[in-house]
Amino acid sequence: MAKDTLLVLSGGMDSTTMLWDYADTIAAAVTFQYGSNHNRREAECARWNCERLGIRWIEIDLEFMGRYFKSSLLSGADEIPEGHYADDNMRSTVVPFRNGIMLAVAAGLAESMELKKVMIANHSGDHAIYPDCRPEFVRSMGAAISDGTYEHLELLAPYTDMTKGEIALRGKNLGVDYSHTYSCYKGGEHHCGKCGTCVERREALEFAGIVLDND
Amino acid sequence: MAKDTLLVLSGGMDSTTMLWDYADTIAAAVTFQYGSNHNRREAECARWNCERLGIRWIEIDLEFMGRYFKSSLLSGADEIPEGHYADDNMRSTVVPFRNGIMLAVAAGLAESMELKKVMIANHSGDHAIYPDCRPEFVRSMGAAISDGTYEHLELLAPYTDMTKGEIALRGKNLGVDYSHTYSCYKGGEHHCGKCGTCVERREALEFAGIVLDND
Repeated sequence: MAKDTLLVLSGGMDSTTMLWDYADTIAAAVTFQYGSNHNRREAECARWNCERLGIRWIEIDLEFMGRYFKSSLLSGADEIPEGHYADDNMRSTVVPFRNGIMLAVAAGLAESMELKKVMIANHSGDHAIYPDCRPEFVRSMGAAISDGTYEHLELLAPYTDMTKGEIALRGKNLGVDYSHTYSCYKGGEHHCGKCGTCVERREALEFAGIVLDND
Repeated sequence: MAKDTLLVLSGGMDSTTMLWDYADTIAAAVTFQYGSNHNRREAECARWNCERLGIRWIEIDLEFMGRYFKSSLLSGADEIPEGHYADDNMRSTVVPFRNGIMLAVAAGLAESMELKKVMIANHSGDHAIYPDCRPEFVRSMGAAISDGTYEHLELLAPYTDMTKGEIALRGKNLGVDYSHTYSCYKGGEHHCGKCGTCVERREALEFAGIVLDND
Protein backbone atom coordinates (compact mmCIF):
# COMPACT_ATOMS: atom_id res chain seq x y z
CA MET A 1 0.00 0.00 0.00
CA ALA A 2 1.14 3.53 -0.74
CA LYS A 3 2.46 5.49 2.23
CA ASP A 4 0.71 8.69 1.19
CA THR A 5 -1.13 9.86 4.33
CA LEU A 6 -0.41 12.43 7.05
CA LEU A 7 -2.20 11.70 10.34
CA VAL A 8 -3.17 14.38 12.85
CA LEU A 9 -2.04 12.65 16.05
CA SER A 10 -2.89 14.09 19.46
CA GLY A 11 -1.49 11.23 21.53
CA GLY A 12 -4.91 10.37 22.97
CA MET A 13 -6.69 7.02 22.55
CA ASP A 14 -8.48 7.69 19.27
CA SER A 15 -5.69 9.03 17.06
CA THR A 16 -3.20 6.56 18.56
CA THR A 17 -5.53 3.69 17.64
CA MET A 18 -5.78 5.14 14.14
CA LEU A 19 -1.97 5.32 13.91
CA TRP A 20 -1.69 1.59 14.62
CA ASP A 21 -4.77 0.76 12.53
CA TYR A 22 -3.55 2.55 9.37
CA ALA A 23 0.22 2.29 9.92
CA ASP A 24 0.76 0.78 6.46
CA THR A 25 -0.55 3.91 4.71
CA ILE A 26 0.72 6.61 7.12
CA ALA A 27 3.90 8.33 5.95
CA ALA A 28 4.05 10.76 8.88
CA ALA A 29 2.09 12.00 11.88
CA VAL A 30 1.84 15.59 13.08
CA THR A 31 1.17 16.67 16.67
CA PHE A 32 0.18 20.24 17.46
CA GLN A 33 1.14 22.22 20.54
CA TYR A 34 -1.37 24.97 21.22
CA GLY A 35 -0.66 25.91 24.79
CA SER A 36 -3.16 23.60 26.50
CA ASN A 37 -2.54 22.07 29.91
CA HIS A 38 -2.16 18.58 28.57
CA ASN A 39 -0.31 19.07 25.30
CA ARG A 40 3.16 18.15 26.59
CA ARG A 41 2.14 14.74 27.95
CA GLU A 42 0.06 14.00 24.85
CA ALA A 43 3.01 14.80 22.61
CA GLU A 44 5.31 12.45 24.52
CA CYS A 45 2.81 9.64 23.92
CA ALA A 46 2.49 10.57 20.24
CA ARG A 47 6.24 10.40 19.78
CA TRP A 48 6.50 7.10 21.67
CA ASN A 49 3.98 5.39 19.40
CA CYS A 50 5.51 6.77 16.19
CA GLU A 51 8.93 5.52 17.28
CA ARG A 52 7.53 2.04 17.88
CA LEU A 53 6.05 1.98 14.39
CA GLY A 54 8.97 3.69 12.61
CA ILE A 55 6.70 6.50 11.40
CA ARG A 56 8.09 10.03 11.02
CA TRP A 57 6.77 12.31 13.76
CA ILE A 58 6.50 16.10 13.32
CA GLU A 59 5.62 18.51 16.12
CA ILE A 60 4.25 21.95 15.24
CA ASP A 61 3.86 24.77 17.73
CA LEU A 62 0.71 26.90 17.36
CA GLU A 63 1.71 29.11 20.26
CA PHE A 64 -0.50 31.98 19.08
CA MET A 65 -3.56 29.96 20.13
CA GLY A 66 -2.50 30.05 23.77
CA ARG A 67 -2.02 33.79 23.47
CA TYR A 68 -5.13 34.89 21.57
CA PHE A 69 -7.71 32.13 21.85
CA LYS A 70 -10.37 31.84 24.53
CA SER A 71 -10.88 28.40 26.13
CA SER A 72 -10.68 26.91 29.62
CA LEU A 73 -8.40 24.31 28.03
CA LEU A 74 -5.80 27.06 27.67
CA SER A 75 -6.33 28.64 31.10
CA GLY A 76 -4.76 26.28 33.63
CA ALA A 77 -6.03 23.09 35.28
CA ASP A 78 -8.23 24.87 37.85
CA GLU A 79 -10.50 26.16 35.13
CA ILE A 80 -11.34 22.73 33.70
CA PRO A 81 -14.96 21.71 34.36
CA GLU A 82 -15.75 18.21 35.60
CA GLY A 83 -18.43 15.96 34.16
CA HIS A 84 -19.58 14.45 30.91
CA TYR A 85 -18.90 15.84 27.41
CA ALA A 86 -22.61 16.36 26.88
CA ASP A 87 -22.89 18.71 29.87
CA ASP A 88 -23.40 22.40 29.27
CA ASN A 89 -20.37 23.46 31.29
CA MET A 90 -18.09 21.51 28.91
CA ARG A 91 -18.53 24.21 26.31
CA SER A 92 -15.78 26.21 27.99
CA THR A 93 -13.28 23.54 26.89
CA VAL A 94 -13.93 24.23 23.22
CA VAL A 95 -10.91 25.77 21.49
CA PRO A 96 -12.53 27.73 18.65
CA PHE A 97 -12.10 26.00 15.25
CA ARG A 98 -9.20 23.94 16.59
CA ASN A 99 -9.75 21.02 14.21
CA GLY A 100 -10.18 23.45 11.31
CA ILE A 101 -6.79 24.98 12.08
CA MET A 102 -5.03 21.65 12.62
CA LEU A 103 -6.49 20.21 9.40
CA ALA A 104 -5.58 23.31 7.38
CA VAL A 105 -1.97 23.19 8.58
CA ALA A 106 -1.88 19.42 8.02
CA ALA A 107 -3.16 19.89 4.45
CA GLY A 108 -0.45 22.45 3.63
CA LEU A 109 2.19 20.28 5.26
CA ALA A 110 1.00 17.17 3.43
CA GLU A 111 1.12 18.98 0.07
CA SER A 112 4.62 20.26 0.90
CA MET A 113 5.65 16.65 1.62
CA GLU A 114 4.02 15.44 -1.64
CA LEU A 115 1.52 13.29 0.25
CA LYS A 116 -2.04 12.80 -0.98
CA LYS A 117 -4.21 12.35 2.11
CA VAL A 118 -4.81 13.83 5.55
CA MET A 119 -6.39 11.71 8.27
CA ILE A 120 -8.12 12.70 11.53
CA ALA A 121 -9.61 10.60 14.34
CA ASN A 122 -12.82 12.44 15.20
CA HIS A 123 -15.53 10.06 16.41
CA SER A 124 -19.24 10.07 17.23
CA GLY A 125 -18.81 10.93 20.92
CA ASP A 126 -17.27 14.32 20.12
CA HIS A 127 -20.15 15.54 18.01
CA ALA A 128 -22.46 16.98 20.64
CA ILE A 129 -20.02 19.49 22.05
CA TYR A 130 -17.42 20.23 19.38
CA PRO A 131 -18.83 21.58 16.09
CA ASP A 132 -15.50 20.98 14.35
CA CYS A 133 -15.75 17.22 15.02
CA ARG A 134 -19.12 16.65 13.35
CA PRO A 135 -19.60 14.76 10.07
CA GLU A 136 -20.88 17.88 8.25
CA PHE A 137 -17.72 19.78 9.21
CA VAL A 138 -15.50 16.92 8.09
CA ARG A 139 -17.33 16.90 4.74
CA SER A 140 -17.07 20.65 4.12
CA MET A 141 -13.48 20.85 5.36
CA GLY A 142 -12.65 17.91 3.10
CA ALA A 143 -14.09 19.83 0.14
CA ALA A 144 -12.08 22.95 1.10
CA ILE A 145 -8.86 20.92 1.32
CA SER A 146 -9.55 19.29 -2.05
CA ASP A 147 -10.46 22.60 -3.73
CA GLY A 148 -7.57 24.54 -2.17
CA THR A 149 -4.68 22.20 -2.99
CA TYR A 150 -2.99 21.55 -6.32
CA GLU A 151 -3.21 17.79 -6.03
CA HIS A 152 -6.74 17.82 -4.57
CA LEU A 153 -5.75 16.23 -1.30
CA GLU A 154 -8.29 13.94 0.34
CA LEU A 155 -9.45 14.16 3.96
CA LEU A 156 -10.11 10.81 5.63
CA ALA A 157 -11.97 10.39 8.92
CA PRO A 158 -12.68 6.67 9.16
CA TYR A 159 -13.79 6.74 12.83
CA THR A 160 -16.46 9.42 12.35
CA ASP A 161 -19.34 7.05 13.05
CA MET A 162 -17.65 4.89 15.70
CA THR A 163 -17.99 5.33 19.45
CA LYS A 164 -14.92 5.71 21.61
CA GLY A 165 -15.69 2.29 23.12
CA GLU A 166 -15.65 0.68 19.68
CA ILE A 167 -12.34 2.41 18.94
CA ALA A 168 -10.86 1.06 22.18
CA LEU A 169 -12.03 -2.45 21.28
CA ARG A 170 -10.43 -2.13 17.87
CA GLY A 171 -7.20 -0.93 19.48
CA LYS A 172 -7.23 -3.82 21.93
CA ASN A 173 -7.42 -6.25 19.02
CA LEU A 174 -4.55 -4.39 17.32
CA GLY A 175 -2.44 -4.66 20.48
CA VAL A 176 -2.33 -0.91 21.23
CA ASP A 177 -0.82 -0.19 24.66
CA TYR A 178 -3.15 2.49 26.02
CA SER A 179 -0.83 3.23 28.93
CA HIS A 180 1.10 5.19 26.28
CA THR A 181 -1.84 7.45 25.44
CA TYR A 182 -2.82 10.60 27.31
CA SER A 183 -5.70 13.04 27.17
CA CYS A 184 -6.59 14.45 30.63
CA TYR A 185 -7.51 18.15 30.28
CA LYS A 186 -5.90 18.90 33.65
CA GLY A 187 -2.51 17.70 32.46
CA GLY A 188 -1.39 15.96 35.68
CA GLU A 189 0.84 12.89 35.95
CA HIS A 190 -2.18 10.58 36.12
CA HIS A 191 -5.56 10.97 34.42
CA CYS A 192 -7.82 12.88 36.85
CA GLY A 193 -10.85 10.72 36.04
CA LYS A 194 -13.24 13.66 36.40
CA CYS A 195 -12.82 15.98 33.42
CA GLY A 196 -14.80 15.38 30.20
CA THR A 197 -12.09 13.53 28.36
CA CYS A 198 -11.26 11.35 31.39
CA VAL A 199 -14.90 10.33 31.87
CA GLU A 200 -15.09 9.31 28.22
CA ARG A 201 -11.74 7.51 28.39
CA ARG A 202 -12.73 5.42 31.41
CA GLU A 203 -16.07 4.46 29.88
CA ALA A 204 -14.35 3.43 26.65
CA LEU A 205 -11.66 1.37 28.39
CA GLU A 206 -14.35 -0.32 30.48
CA PHE A 207 -16.45 -1.03 27.36
CA ALA A 208 -13.42 -2.73 25.78
CA GLY A 209 -12.46 -4.59 28.96
CA ILE A 210 -9.08 -2.89 29.22
CA VAL A 211 -7.56 -2.39 32.68
CA LEU A 212 -4.73 0.12 33.09
CA ASP A 213 -2.84 0.49 36.38
CA ASN A 214 -2.32 4.04 37.63
CA ASP A 215 -4.09 5.59 34.65
CA MET B 1 -23.22 49.18 11.17
CA ALA B 2 -22.02 46.40 13.44
CA LYS B 3 -18.25 46.07 13.80
CA ASP B 4 -18.32 42.29 13.65
CA THR B 5 -15.71 41.38 11.03
CA LEU B 6 -12.09 40.20 11.15
CA LEU B 7 -10.11 40.99 7.98
CA VAL B 8 -7.14 38.96 6.79
CA LEU B 9 -4.79 41.81 5.88
CA SER B 10 -1.51 41.16 4.05
CA GLY B 11 -0.54 44.78 3.55
CA GLY B 12 -0.69 44.49 -0.25
CA MET B 13 -3.00 46.51 -2.52
CA ASP B 14 -6.08 44.28 -2.42
CA SER B 15 -6.54 43.69 1.29
CA THR B 16 -5.55 47.29 2.09
CA THR B 17 -8.25 48.53 -0.28
CA MET B 18 -10.72 46.21 1.44
CA LEU B 19 -9.67 47.59 4.84
CA TRP B 20 -10.55 51.11 3.74
CA ASP B 21 -13.62 49.97 1.80
CA TYR B 22 -15.19 48.06 4.73
CA ALA B 23 -13.71 50.02 7.65
CA ASP B 24 -17.13 50.61 9.20
CA THR B 25 -17.70 46.85 9.70
CA ILE B 26 -14.15 45.73 10.48
CA ALA B 27 -13.44 45.25 14.20
CA ALA B 28 -9.88 44.02 13.72
CA ALA B 29 -7.38 42.96 11.07
CA VAL B 30 -4.92 40.10 11.31
CA THR B 31 -1.60 39.87 9.47
CA PHE B 32 0.29 36.59 9.25
CA GLN B 33 4.04 36.13 9.27
CA TYR B 34 5.01 32.91 7.57
CA GLY B 35 8.66 33.35 6.87
CA SER B 36 8.42 34.78 3.36
CA ASN B 37 10.89 37.29 1.98
CA HIS B 38 8.40 40.12 1.92
CA ASN B 39 6.36 39.58 5.08
CA ARG B 40 8.13 42.17 7.22
CA ARG B 41 7.54 45.08 4.81
CA GLU B 42 3.96 43.98 4.18
CA ALA B 43 3.28 43.91 7.92
CA GLU B 44 4.61 47.43 8.38
CA CYS B 45 2.15 48.64 5.74
CA ALA B 46 -0.70 46.68 7.34
CA ARG B 47 -0.03 48.29 10.71
CA TRP B 48 0.28 51.77 9.19
CA ASN B 49 -3.15 51.56 7.55
CA CYS B 50 -4.85 50.12 10.66
CA GLU B 51 -3.41 52.94 12.75
CA ARG B 52 -4.78 55.53 10.33
CA LEU B 53 -8.25 53.98 10.59
CA GLY B 54 -8.18 53.26 14.33
CA ILE B 55 -8.70 49.53 13.70
CA ARG B 56 -7.13 46.96 16.01
CA TRP B 57 -4.21 45.17 14.33
CA ILE B 58 -3.09 41.68 15.32
CA GLU B 59 0.05 40.00 14.02
CA ILE B 60 0.34 36.21 14.18
CA ASP B 61 3.52 34.29 13.53
CA LEU B 62 3.16 31.05 11.58
CA GLU B 63 6.87 30.34 11.77
CA PHE B 64 6.39 26.60 11.21
CA MET B 65 5.52 27.36 7.57
CA GLY B 66 8.99 28.73 6.92
CA ARG B 67 10.45 25.62 8.48
CA TYR B 68 8.35 22.84 6.98
CA PHE B 69 6.64 24.19 3.86
CA LYS B 70 8.01 24.06 0.33
CA SER B 71 7.77 27.27 -1.75
CA SER B 72 10.18 29.61 -3.52
CA LEU B 73 8.42 32.36 -1.59
CA LEU B 74 10.08 31.00 1.55
CA SER B 75 13.51 30.35 0.04
CA GLY B 76 15.14 33.75 -0.41
CA ALA B 77 14.84 36.41 -3.10
CA ASP B 78 17.12 34.65 -5.60
CA GLU B 79 14.64 31.82 -5.99
CA ILE B 80 11.73 34.05 -7.03
CA PRO B 81 10.78 33.59 -10.70
CA GLU B 82 10.11 36.63 -12.89
CA GLY B 83 7.10 37.05 -15.15
CA HIS B 84 3.34 36.95 -15.15
CA TYR B 85 1.15 35.08 -12.63
CA ALA B 86 -0.22 32.92 -15.43
CA ASP B 87 3.24 31.61 -16.33
CA ASP B 88 4.14 28.03 -15.48
CA ASN B 89 7.21 28.95 -13.48
CA MET B 90 5.07 30.94 -11.03
CA ARG B 91 3.85 27.70 -9.52
CA SER B 92 6.96 27.61 -7.35
CA THR B 93 5.66 30.67 -5.47
CA VAL B 94 2.60 28.77 -4.22
CA VAL B 95 2.71 28.25 -0.45
CA PRO B 96 0.61 25.08 -0.06
CA PHE B 97 -2.89 25.82 1.32
CA ARG B 98 -1.75 29.21 2.64
CA ASN B 99 -5.18 30.82 2.42
CA GLY B 100 -6.77 27.76 3.99
CA ILE B 101 -4.43 28.07 6.96
CA MET B 102 -4.84 31.83 7.32
CA LEU B 103 -8.64 31.58 7.09
CA ALA B 104 -8.79 28.73 9.60
CA VAL B 105 -6.72 30.67 12.13
CA ALA B 106 -8.75 33.82 11.43
CA ALA B 107 -11.99 31.89 12.03
CA GLY B 108 -10.82 30.60 15.41
CA LEU B 109 -9.52 34.03 16.35
CA ALA B 110 -12.77 35.71 15.28
CA GLU B 111 -14.84 33.28 17.35
CA SER B 112 -12.53 33.86 20.33
CA MET B 113 -13.12 37.61 19.91
CA GLU B 114 -16.89 37.07 19.60
CA LEU B 115 -16.95 38.39 16.04
CA LYS B 116 -19.29 36.97 13.39
CA LYS B 117 -17.50 37.30 10.07
CA VAL B 118 -14.13 36.72 8.44
CA MET B 119 -13.16 38.63 5.31
CA ILE B 120 -10.48 37.96 2.67
CA ALA B 121 -9.41 39.92 -0.40
CA ASN B 122 -8.87 37.22 -3.02
CA HIS B 123 -9.67 38.47 -6.53
CA SER B 124 -10.09 37.12 -10.05
CA GLY B 125 -6.44 37.57 -11.07
CA ASP B 126 -5.23 35.08 -8.46
CA HIS B 127 -7.40 32.25 -9.66
CA ALA B 128 -5.25 30.76 -12.38
CA ILE B 129 -2.25 30.01 -10.24
CA TYR B 130 -3.41 29.70 -6.64
CA PRO B 131 -6.06 27.03 -6.01
CA ASP B 132 -6.82 28.47 -2.58
CA CYS B 133 -7.91 31.81 -4.12
CA ARG B 134 -10.59 30.40 -6.43
CA PRO B 135 -14.33 30.93 -5.92
CA GLU B 136 -14.97 27.21 -5.35
CA PHE B 137 -12.40 27.16 -2.55
CA VAL B 138 -13.88 30.26 -0.95
CA ARG B 139 -17.30 28.57 -1.05
CA SER B 140 -16.19 25.28 0.47
CA MET B 141 -13.95 26.96 3.06
CA GLY B 142 -16.87 29.22 3.96
CA ALA B 143 -19.01 26.13 4.56
CA ALA B 144 -16.28 24.55 6.71
CA ILE B 145 -15.97 27.74 8.80
CA SER B 146 -19.74 27.91 9.25
CA ASP B 147 -20.06 24.21 10.12
CA GLY B 148 -17.06 24.17 12.44
CA THR B 149 -17.86 27.19 14.63
CA TYR B 150 -20.48 27.54 17.36
CA GLU B 151 -21.88 30.77 15.99
CA HIS B 152 -21.68 29.66 12.33
CA LEU B 153 -19.26 32.37 11.31
CA GLU B 154 -19.57 33.71 7.80
CA LEU B 155 -16.75 34.04 5.26
CA LEU B 156 -16.92 37.12 3.03
CA ALA B 157 -14.83 37.61 -0.11
CA PRO B 158 -16.42 40.60 -1.85
CA TYR B 159 -13.60 41.10 -4.39
CA THR B 160 -13.69 37.50 -5.72
CA ASP B 161 -14.96 38.53 -9.15
CA MET B 162 -13.09 41.85 -9.47
CA THR B 163 -9.80 42.36 -11.29
CA LYS B 164 -6.85 43.92 -9.50
CA GLY B 165 -7.23 46.96 -11.76
CA GLU B 166 -10.85 47.42 -10.67
CA ILE B 167 -9.75 47.13 -7.04
CA ALA B 168 -7.09 49.82 -7.56
CA LEU B 169 -9.69 52.09 -9.15
CA ARG B 170 -11.99 51.56 -6.20
CA GLY B 171 -9.14 52.33 -3.80
CA LYS B 172 -8.26 55.46 -5.73
CA ASN B 173 -11.83 56.69 -5.27
CA LEU B 174 -11.63 55.83 -1.55
CA GLY B 175 -8.41 57.82 -1.21
CA VAL B 176 -6.15 54.84 -0.41
CA ASP B 177 -2.46 55.81 -0.40
CA TYR B 178 -0.87 52.90 -2.25
CA SER B 179 2.63 54.01 -1.35
CA HIS B 180 1.76 52.40 2.01
CA THR B 181 1.12 48.98 0.48
CA TYR B 182 3.73 46.36 -0.29
CA SER B 183 3.78 43.01 -2.03
CA CYS B 184 7.05 42.37 -3.90
CA TYR B 185 8.04 38.70 -3.51
CA LYS B 186 11.71 39.66 -3.43
CA GLY B 187 11.22 41.80 -0.35
CA GLY B 188 13.60 44.66 -1.28
CA GLU B 189 13.20 48.32 -0.34
CA HIS B 190 11.45 49.08 -3.63
CA HIS B 191 9.13 46.87 -5.68
CA CYS B 192 11.34 44.91 -8.14
CA GLY B 193 8.83 45.29 -10.96
CA LYS B 194 9.64 41.84 -12.36
CA CYS B 195 8.20 39.19 -10.04
CA GLY B 196 4.60 37.98 -10.49
CA THR B 197 3.06 40.22 -7.88
CA CYS B 198 4.99 43.30 -9.11
CA VAL B 199 3.87 42.77 -12.70
CA GLU B 200 0.25 42.57 -11.55
CA ARG B 201 0.66 45.57 -9.25
CA ARG B 202 2.06 47.79 -11.99
CA GLU B 203 -0.64 46.78 -14.46
CA ALA B 204 -3.34 47.52 -11.87
CA LEU B 205 -1.88 50.92 -10.90
CA GLU B 206 -1.63 51.81 -14.60
CA PHE B 207 -5.23 50.69 -15.21
CA ALA B 208 -6.39 52.99 -12.41
CA GLY B 209 -4.16 55.87 -13.52
CA ILE B 210 -2.19 55.90 -10.25
CA VAL B 211 1.43 57.05 -10.34
CA LEU B 212 3.70 56.21 -7.40
CA ASP B 213 7.22 57.60 -7.14
CA ASN B 214 9.94 55.09 -6.22
CA ASP B 215 7.52 52.17 -6.02
